[in-house]
Amino acid sequence: MIVDVHAHYTQAPPQLDAWRARQLYTQNKPAKAKLAISDEMIVASLQGNLREMRQRGITRMMFSPRASGMGHEFGGELVSRYWTETNNDLIARACKLLPDHFTPVMQLPQTPGLSPTNCLEEIDRCVTELGFVACNINPDVAAGGLPFTPSLGDEWWYPLWEKLVALDIPGMIHPSSTINPGLHLNGSHYLNWDTAAVVELCYSRVFEDFPALKLIIPHGGGAIPFQFNRQRGLHVLQGRKPFEEAIRPLYFDLAVYDADSMAMILKKIGADRLLYASEMFGTAQAIDPLTGKAFDDTVGMVREIPGITQAQQDMIFFGNAQRLYSRARW
Amino acid sequence: MIVDVHAHYTQAPPQLDAWRARQLYTQNKPAKAKLAISDEMIVASLQGNLREMRQRGITRMMFSPRASGMGHEFGGELVSRYWTETNNDLIARACKLLPDHFTPVMQLPQTPGLSPTNCLEEIDRCVTELGFVACNINPDVAAGGLPFTPSLGDEWWYPLWEKLVALDIPGMIHPSSTINPGLHLNGSHYLNWDTAAVVELCYSRVFEDFPALKLIIPHGGGAIPFQFNRQRGLHVLQGRKPFEEAIRPLYFDLAVYDADSMAMILKKIGADRLLYASEMFGTAQAIDPLTGKAFDDTVGMVREIPGITQAQQDMIFFGNAQRLYSRARW
Repeated sequence: MIVDVHAHYTQAPPQLDAWRARQLYTQNKPAKAKLAISDEMIVASLQGNLREMRQRGITRMMFSPRASGMGHEFGGELVSRYWTETNNDLIARACKLLPDHFTPVMQLPQTPGLSPTNCLEEIDRCVTELGFVACNINPDVAAGGLPFTPSLGDEWWYPLWEKLVALDIPGMIHPSSTINPGLHLNGSHYLNWDTAAVVELCYSRVFEDFPALKLIIPHGGGAIPFQFNRQRGLHVLQGRKPFEEAIRPLYFDLAVYDADSMAMILKKIGADRLLYASEMFGTAQAIDPLTGKAFDDTVGMVREIPGITQAQQDMIFFGNAQRLYSRARW
Repeated sequence: MIVDVHAHYTQAPPQLDAWRARQLYTQNKPAKAKLAISDEMIVASLQGNLREMRQRGITRMMFSPRASGMGHEFGGELVSRYWTETNNDLIARACKLLPDHFTPVMQLPQTPGLSPTNCLEEIDRCVTELGFVACNINPDVAAGGLPFTPSLGDEWWYPLWEKLVALDIPGMIHPSSTINPGLHLNGSHYLNWDTAAVVELCYSRVFEDFPALKLIIPHGGGAIPFQFNRQRGLHVLQGRKPFEEAIRPLYFDLAVYDADSMAMILKKIGADRLLYASEMFGTAQAIDPLTGKAFDDTVGMVREIPGITQAQQDMIFFGNAQRLYSRARW
C-alpha cells in the first residue's frame, strides 16, 4: 500500500473556476450559486490520476481543493465560506464516487482579520457529515497583504488546534496564493511558508499545550532540512529547547523530487515523521529530460534512498499515514 | 588565504544604534547628526573578529553594516539616506583602520516606493571616494509591508544593475528586517528571500541583458539546493530555459553550518560559483553542544566535504572572491 498524502484537485472541470470567477465579480453581494458539475464529469476528470496511481503503485490519495485557488484574501467572510463549502462539497462527491482511491481533505473558510474560530463549524460539517479526515491550513490568510496573519506559534490559532485535537484530524500547513510580485507561487512562496511554519512552531509552546496535535509540513519542509544546523544554532543562541527536540512533533511530506534531498530529509527528520507525497498533478508534473520520467514519479526514488530499510519504507508509504489520518478508512 | 565574503558589523559600539533611535524619534524632520564613535572604539569593537579570524585562518572579511539594521522601511528618502551614509562612513573608517583584515561593502539608501536610481549617487560616493568594493541589495524594501518591491527580475531594477556593471562591483541580495509577525528574521525571513531571489532571477532576462552582472545569494541559497529539482521541474513545465543553465550566472555563499548541506551545495551549484562565508558574528555564533565549536566555525567543514579537491577549495576560499571583488586590494 502506498498513500500519497498531498494531492489537490487540480484537474477539476472548468465549471469550478467559472463559478469562482462569477463569485468574485459580485463579491460585494455574495450569494451561493449552484455548481453545475455532474458525477460523470468528476469521474472523467480523475481518470489521469487513476491511471498514474495504477502505474506508480499509489493506492490512495489524500485529496483536497487546489491550494492556489483557496484565495482567502478575496472578499469577506461569506465569500470565503461559500467558496469553501462549494469546494469541500465537490471533494466529498469525488471521494464518494471513487472511495477506494481518494480520501477527502478540506480547505477552511479562513478570512483575513478573522479568528480561525470562524472555521470550526465547517470543520464539524465536513468531518461529521461528509467523512473528511484532515484539513489544509493557510498560514498567510491575506496572501502576503494586510492584515498580517499572526505567527503559527501564537495563541490566536489555539481554537483551531483545539478542534483538530478534539476530532483527531491532522492539519497540513499550506498557503494559498500571494499578492507579492517579488515571490513565485510554486517556486518560492509555498517553500517560504513551509520554512516559516517550522520556525514559528518550534519557537512556540504549541506542542506543549497540544501534545496530541498533528501538523504536517509539505514540500519536504521548504528549506528546513538543508538549513537544519542554522536552526539548531539559533535555538542554542536564544536559549531555547534544542531544535532537534522542538521539531520532533512535526510531520513532513516527501514532495521533493530529488534523490539527494530525500536522503537528506530522511537523515535529518527520520522515517517516523515522513509521509510519502508526490503532489500529482501539480508543480512537478513535467517530464525530467534527464530521466524521461515525470519529476513527481518518485515512488522508486524513495525505495532507492541509500540505506533505507523496508521498515522505514513502510512507515513512509503507509504506516505513518495510517496513524495520522485516524478517521480514514483504508 | 581565506576570504569570508559575508560579515556584518554586528559588534558596532552602541552609539550607532543610539544614533538610529534618535533619528527615528524625529523621522518626520530628518536631520543628520554627528556619530560620536572614536577610532579607538572601532578598533576595540573588532578585537573579537580579529581573534577569531586568526584562530580560524580567515584572512579577510567583506564587511558591511548590520543587515537587520538597514531598516529601509522606516521614514522617507532622507531618513534612509542619512542612516545609510552614517553606516557606510563607519564601515569605511573601520576598514581604513584595519585595512589588512576588512574590505568595505555598503548598504544602499533604498526607500519604499522609490526607484533604485536614488541609490546611484551613494554607490558612486562609496566606490570612488571611500574604496568600497561591493553592496548589499534589499529585495524587500518595505520589509514585507506596502508598497511591495517589484520582482528582482523586473526592469525596475535595471538602473542598479547598470551601475554595478559600470563599476564592476558585485551585489549581495540581502533583506533587512520584516514587519510580518509570521516570520522570523534569521530563521525564515532571510532564507525566504534567498529562495525568492534565485527563482525571480532565473525566470528573468536579467543575465541576458546584463551578462557581466555579478550577484551573490547568501546563506547557501535558502532552500534552493534542497529544492533544486522542484525548480528544474517548474522550468520544464513552463517552457523556460533549463534551471540548471539559468542558475549558472549566480554566485552563492557558504553560510550554512552543516556538513551535509555543504556537500549538497557543492554538488548542485559547483565550486566555481561558491564563496566561503561564515557570517561571523551573526546567526550561528553559538557553540554547538555536539561539537564544542561555534556553529559558524566552518573552515574545517569545507575542507572536509567528501571528495572536495584542493582546486575546489582554492576557488571557494579565495579564487572566486578575487575574481568577483575586482576592486579589492588583496
